[in-house]
Amino acid sequence: MEAIEELTLGPCASSQYLRPFRLRYRQNGTQKFWDFMRTHDSVSILIFNTSRQCFVLVKQFRPAVYMCEVERHHPQDFQSKSQDSWSPLTDPLPATAGVTYELCAGIVDKPELSLEEVACEEVLEECGYNVPISSLKRIASYRSGVGVTGSKQTMFYAEVTDQMKTGEGGGQPEEGELIEVVEIPLQDSMKFAFDESFPKTMGVIFSFTWFQSNIVPQLLEK
Amino acid sequence: MEAIEELTLGPCASSQYLRPFRLRYRQNGTQKFWDFMRTHDSVSILIFNTSRQCFVLVKQFRPAVYMCEVERHHPQDFQSKSQDSWSPLTDPLPATAGVTYELCAGIVDKPELSLEEVACEEVLEECGYNVPISSLKRIASYRSGVGVTGSKQTMFYAEVTDQMKTGEGGGQPEEGELIEVVEIPLQDSMKFAFDESFPKTMGVIFSFTWFQSNIVPQLLEK
Repeated sequence: MEAIEELTLGPCASSQYLRPFRLRYRQNGTQKFWDFMRTHDSVSILIFNTSRQCFVLVKQFRPAVYMCEVERHHPQDFQSKSQDSWSPLTDPLPATAGVTYELCAGIVDKPELSLEEVACEEVLEECGYNVPISSLKRIASYRSGVGVTGSKQTMFYAEVTDQMKTGEGGGQPEEGELIEVVEIPLQDSMKFAFDESFPKTMGVIFSFTWFQSNIVPQLLEK
Repeated sequence: MEAIEELTLGPCASSQYLRPFRLRYRQNGTQKFWDFMRTHDSVSILIFNTSRQCFVLVKQFRPAVYMCEVERHHPQDFQSKSQDSWSPLTDPLPATAGVTYELCAGIVDKPELSLEEVACEEVLEECGYNVPISSLKRIASYRSGVGVTGSKQTMFYAEVTDQMKTGEGGGQPEEGELIEVVEIPLQDSMKFAFDESFPKTMGVIFSFTWFQSNIVPQLLEK
């Protein structure tokens, strides 16, 4: 899928993406501290194409996932890091080691937009479907990364048809996004969800399971 | 539940918990970089007590979740931060703003133990049940925090009885853990899962939904 080359690992002294803080506090009388990061809240959207009875997911190369696998296979690449210098990855893994299947999703960084508006923007940008806000159904809201970020994620469900496809999706290349849109047929979806040879997020597994309980009965009635 | 006092927010120049790195690479010919953090893989366990037909969850104060709510209500507490100095939180929120319901879980940081062994240790430490490894059922494995950590999480299912309860649970106070064990009756569980007034992780919502599809039919047969 992707050509990933010239991998070099180095320190990250300051970052506009990772903003670490330390909180000191007293809990039931005991002095404590906790290191955490501030990140944005986010939305994700389970998209089901009724024209072709398939789910619409996105697939992309995730550096953090890739490096997780690098550490699993070549722990010395991290152990030898002084966190002060740059060093090329010798013997890199294939790019597929870092490619994951995910729900269409995005961060909430425009205060003037509702969660639903952000969700519709992401569906259009990443997957190419023009979805009216009124057709979104809220599935659930929950906390992600409770140890480190604790941000709030809200998941929506959107039914689309082929007629609603107005673009190719793929994300915003000018922002460095390289997103592949993939379709998972409904009939294969539960097998896919629990097949660990396809790396994916819990959002995919949960939403497919939710769909079976909440939407499939309606489809059967029609 | 908790008394949280003397909250002070400050910089986190270096941390044994948050290890940021930067990866430079070339993707399909374009030079890029990505900031990420290395963390441990983890396990989580859906515990169902068959003696009393309830789920066993843990509930704890999460500083990252709390501060997420602080920023939502008092954005100036972060905006005014220079990241160089310590400042007390004026007008702090009640501690309950940072308390979440979660599956029993733990990080995988002992290479000599299998995932199942780590899971059984956590069930005993956090919830007080002595579960044989052979009774664990693997539910799914997935990637968490694909943008920042990408670590692998594996979810198990464990059925317990009152007779298997050998301790109080509550975590390891000497490591600063203050965990409350809570029971959610099966009959209330789906309402609880989708009631957003109880902050929780996606793992709780997903595993309760999974249980309805995969375990309830077996219970009804018995």
